[in-house]
Amino acid sequence: MARRPQSKDLVLMFDRPQEPIFMPKGDDGNIAFDIPTELLGNRINTDMGIVDRLGASQADEHISVGSIAIPDLSIPQLLSRDQNFSLFIPLHRRAAARLIEIFMGMRNIEDLISMCAACRERVNPYLFNYALSVAILHRPDTRNLQIPPLFESFPDKFVDGAIFGKARQETEIFQSGSRQPLEIPMDYTASDLDIEHRLAYFREDLGINLHHWHWHLVYPFSGPRNLVDKNRRGELFYYMHQQIMARYNFERLCNKLGRVIRFLNWRDPIPEGYFPKLDSLVASRVWPPRHANALLRCNREVDQLRVDIQDCERWRDRMFEAIHLGSIVLPDGKRQNLTEEGGIDILGNIMEASILSPNQNLYGDLHNLIHVLIGLCHDPDARNLETFSTIGDPATAMRDPIFYRLHAFVDDVFQEHKATLPPYETNRLNYNGITVRGVDVVSQGVPRNEFKTFWKKDDVDLSRGIDFTPRGNVFARFTHLQHTEFTYRIQVENNTNSDKIGTVRIFLAPKFDERGVNMVFRDQRLLFIELDKFTTTLKPKTNTIERKSTDSSVTIPFERTFRDLQSNRPSGGTQLEAFNFCGCGWPHHMLIPKGTPEGFSCQLFVMISNYDDDKINQSTEGACADAASYCGIRDKLYPDKRSMGYPFDRVPRSGVNTLQDFLTPNMFVQNVTIRFSGQTFDVQGADITNALT
Amino acid sequence: MARRPQSKDLVLMFDRPQEPIFMPKGDDGNIAFDIPTELLGNRINTDMGIVDRLGASQADEHISVGSIAIPDLSIPQLLSRDQNFSLFIPLHRRAAARLIEIFMGMRNIEDLISMCAACRERVNPYLFNYALSVAILHRPDTRNLQIPPLFESFPDKFVDGAIFGKARQETEIFQSGSRQPLEIPMDYTASDLDIEHRLAYFREDLGINLHHWHWHLVYPFSGPRNLVDKNRRGELFYYMHQQIMARYNFERLCNKLGRVIRFLNWRDPIPEGYFPKLDSLVASRVWPPRHANALLRCNREVDQLRVDIQDCERWRDRMFEAIHLGSIVLPDGKRQNLTEEGGIDILGNIMEASILSPNQNLYGDLHNLIHVLIGLCHDPDARNLETFSTIGDPATAMRDPIFYRLHAFVDDVFQEHKATLPPYETNRLNYNGITVRGVDVVSQGVPRNEFKTFWKKDDVDLSRGIDFTPRGNVFARFTHLQHTEFTYRIQVENNTNSDKIGTVRIFLAPKFDERGVNMVFRDQRLLFIELDKFTTTLKPKTNTIERKSTDSSVTIPFERTFRDLQSNRPSGGTQLEAFNFCGCGWPHHMLIPKGTPEGFSCQLFVMISNYDDDKINQSTEGACADAASYCGIRDKLYPDKRSMGYPFDRVPRSGVNTLQDFLTPNMFVQNVTIRFSGQTFDVQGADITNALT
Repeated sequence: MARRPQSKDLVLMFDRPQEPIFMPKGDDGNIAFDIPTELLGNRINTDMGIVDRLGASQADEHISVGSIAIPDLSIPQLLSRDQNFSLFIPLHRRAAARLIEIFMGMRNIEDLISMCAACRERVNPYLFNYALSVAILHRPDTRNLQIPPLFESFPDKFVDGAIFGKARQETEIFQSGSRQPLEIPMDYTASDLDIEHRLAYFREDLGINLHHWHWHLVYPFSGPRNLVDKNRRGELFYYMHQQIMARYNFERLCNKLGRVIRFLNWRDPIPEGYFPKLDSLVASRVWPPRHANALLRCNREVDQLRVDIQDCERWRDRMFEAIHLGSIVLPDGKRQNLTEEGGIDILGNIMEASILSPNQNLYGDLHNLIHVLIGLCHDPDARNLETFSTIGDPATAMRDPIFYRLHAFVDDVFQEHKATLPPYETNRLNYNGITVRGVDVVSQGVPRNEFKTFWKKDDVDLSRGIDFTPRGNVFARFTHLQHTEFTYRIQVENNTNSDKIGTVRIFLAPKFDERGVNMVFRDQRLLFIELDKFTTTLKPKTNTIERKSTDSSVTIPFERTFRDLQSNRPSGGTQLEAFNFCGCGWPHHMLIPKGTPEGFSCQLFVMISNYDDDKINQSTEGACADAASYCGIRDKLYPDKRSMGYPFDRVPRSGVNTLQDFLTPNMFVQNVTIRFSGQTFDVQGADITNALT
Repeated sequence: MARRPQSKDLVLMFDRPQEPIFMPKGDDGNIAFDIPTELLGNRINTDMGIVDRLGASQADEHISVGSIAIPDLSIPQLLSRDQNFSLFIPLHRRAAARLIEIFMGMRNIEDLISMCAACRERVNPYLFNYALSVAILHRPDTRNLQIPPLFESFPDKFVDGAIFGKARQETEIFQSGSRQPLEIPMDYTASDLDIEHRLAYFREDLGINLHHWHWHLVYPFSGPRNLVDKNRRGELFYYMHQQIMARYNFERLCNKLGRVIRFLNWRDPIPEGYFPKLDSLVASRVWPPRHANALLRCNREVDQLRVDIQDCERWRDRMFEAIHLGSIVLPDGKRQNLTEEGGIDILGNIMEASILSPNQNLYGDLHNLIHVLIGLCHDPDARNLETFSTIGDPATAMRDPIFYRLHAFVDDVFQEHKATLPPYETNRLNYNGITVRGVDVVSQGVPRNEFKTFWKKDDVDLSRGIDFTPRGNVFARFTHLQHTEFTYRIQVENNTNSDKIGTVRIFLAPKFDERGVNMVFRDQRLLFIELDKFTTTLKPKTNTIERKSTDSSVTIPFERTFRDLQSNRPSGGTQLEAFNFCGCGWPHHMLIPKGTPEGFSCQLFVMISNYDDDKINQSTEGACADAASYCGIRDKLYPDKRSMGYPFDRVPRSGVNTLQDFLTPNMFVQNVTIRFSGQTFDVQGADITNALT
């Protein structure tokens, strides 16, 4: 059966990215593209018998792809098919921008599919994936499509490279159905001799890295301006990464490690080494390791990259100068103030730097190029023909301990700006007439005000990312942190005579610092991680608000992070629409930090702010807002008028030394504990702790 | 057709080392082992349908393997299946020794094949290859078998890792016959920004690395004593490596680089980095790189390895003390002299160290453990779970520039001993009545006394080393140095009245040093590379000896280095017998150094020594002596009674400052030139130089 292409066929373009386009696609290899010979590579179109032999003719469903004139691909082809692709490298950005333009310019779905077929055979597979993903996200006729999680097309960016040889064996020897999942050990990158390895479960978490990749896909810093220029994107760059830092530092304290030391002096050797043990299937290389005590330097003609530390220092110093003067210098020499409302957005774009940065000549390209500097320090002049390390790709950057040291510096610059802003006085915190009387966390089988955490095993399918293997799933089994679902129960008194609308803001922070001493507010505010934010209506008198942990405004459900296209293929339009933006979001299983076996003391902070001061007048009906706090809402304004991170984004008003000092009646603090149970649960949810020991 | 196992079936055990034993073997997959279920792994023997499905039932020829009791494999299994195996690591040596014992202990071929089938499923594939190779070399009933070159089973140790993804694509998409050879670029490990890269064509040459692996296979330093204790093996360790150093330094001078700087201070950072870009298919990892300026340290509990630089320094100092005192201390406290004849053999065994080392408590395990120290310096305490780098495996060690710096030190120790020996006075050099009157090098189309060198492309088959791909060859095309074949024409006068037998010794050295100044003999003697050595009968009066370059006593023919099992399967017994020992030998295409485009000035030295003082009374009829100078002859004495390297292995007699001073009438020096033509010839021998530029 042959039929015309439909938009949903685009997702098949992501399957097994290094196989020829005409090879059978889909899980069972039951669907195939019929490609006009002129779109195929030269060697193949002289022998079309190949197409039959490789199984396409046995597919039940055939998609007739029309011909199309192949455009000039010289810019996208600046990147060869077996190079690694990084948006941080300006040359690669140009290649991506051109390919996105090509895809965006196609008149209709049929042309787009023809163009994809032609390009898929001719450009770098990872570049193809990126450009097509961005195009699908932004084209009016494809935006409702669900892009498969990057993990499915490029599992090599997410799991131990050693798994692929095993997966190949498993699929070749055993038939689909009798294959066993391949266990990825928890400790494959390092041992406990490396104290940083205690955080590997966080840094190497699949969901966290998928979130980071997806966030940068939704918020590209480069490309056509209308794709980049999203509401408060500079501020969100600051806030999303600030929250990553808060979460990472929180986890460090749980693991008896001090907070991250900012990476300030770029001339010092970097004591942290990192050996990612990831393959790059595209490059047939591995991601290069960084040895301990590496020095930064980068002058690579081959990549047209010369990054001098002196340049970076000048950009940094100019940023600090702008912050301390309260204004930046524009290209025409005039100054623009860094206002309380908009300053952080400008600084976010300057720091990252996105193409929205108002004066890149002066303020440079600091964050991206330090990623590059670190990512290439093992081969600074390219004499060894090495590509960048994991820090050079948003899909892998968060694996490396240096990512957090770099972002501790980045966040520090933002905080320097925040320190120049007026503190929130009580009138900007309080909600007259609203008093929070009590907060509890309740969870079945867990003591009140305790979070329970444990290890959980789950499977993800590798089969769409491994070329030339027999069809059918082959699963990797990984172990991740998880927590027992819980409910917030919040007692609120409305002392007015009318219904009031409030925004409930829930945060969590450690109670004690590294020395076991109560935190001072100035430090603790930076460690508050956002757990949830939602709107509620408060009737007069007593209200009890119940809110489930799974409804969190920062996370997406586990199933969405690791969506299995087979079992979970949405059928309706709304669901489809929902998916892509929702692909962005903190993985729900990492909502709660690990805690400790003895119980880690935390403070749960709940505030109800006046919705009149929070609200954005827009309809978000049908829009996916699942993880809006970290990801925004597609094509909408950021759904909270306050500064991101409110009320913790400023230094406190005078006289506030502790969290208790900070409270106004519409706030409440509950002491809670995170207890890591030490248990491991298998895929079906059975406790297998004893079987493991 | 099913038949009983024969000894020749053993070589099929080397095919595609990670596929299950029952999968079809041989080039066309037309032969298969029928394995009793109890020898298979548990998952497979419960579903014998797998065996059929994977094609074994379609094989034309079936080998009925008998059952056998599986012995205790706990020692060989100390190495897991996906670990990398290194004889330098004592724990791995134990595993290998046990497996060799098991194979050596089998009563007959049928039992050996059953045992191989069982072990192949259960032990590390590289360990299996090594142990079976050693067993085949040493068992009386298998020694005539030809072991496939390691390249065929483990191509990943020899060629750019990027080739394997391409080879998989090529074999999946194109059928045998229409596949194109996959080109391995000459410069895939580094660029000319790294001056050491100028020598990559030497260090990364397939034949050179195969020679080194094969040499260490023939001369293991550990294992059952009767396998180790070969005639003059310690001296040969010295001489073979001395010649490697001479050849490498010679090549360096051709490339306008100074001679190797000895690696003396092991506490200094190592400026040379090396990024091998080799996969380890067994470990599903790559060979780790060494960054520039690495420091040595090694304390890895996981490998039961603690190597202190202080220990190494003590061993080194004790060796020097023994050399300068002229005797070593034995375990019973007595001293043994380092005699002119036997001293170097003892020192070779002490230095390496082989199990023949007479007092390892005192003199340690220096050379092997410095290999280990360097090989693990990127992860000295194993915190990063990294395996050793290329220097840790004889099959890959010669790729790394540090190999030569280490062996420059090793050789220096030996030379220190040689300096204590009496110089050869003229009576030990001269051959009364014999005068060499002239020497010429002649070669078709090349000026007299010129060597012509160029690049040549050739193909090697990867298919036996890539698991789970469609059958049929897939070739890697590599580019190597080659020279035009030539003939030595030597004019000799015999002024006696009777036939005389002489040993013709031919050496080549650079004429000028790094500064372009004539070499002094003390330095030049260390750069003389042996080109040939053979016995000749000189009739009275004038004799003209003609000798072809292809008959060299240091090299093996190109076809033997890269033997294609298909096209070159020896049929007769003698040929079979010949192969294995002959697998050892300097690759013929590297006989002559590269030279320079303008012509590199060298001195060709020819000497005819008195056979009465050279000869060993033994029959070498039928024994392979092709590369006897570097490899010895199997089960025979080393075929030259003189000290290896004679006459250049001593400091010269007093008064000798130049090569000319050194000459006695039975010697002759001819000025010759090596001219690198800059041409590249394709596989068929056509000049494609212009097509490339």
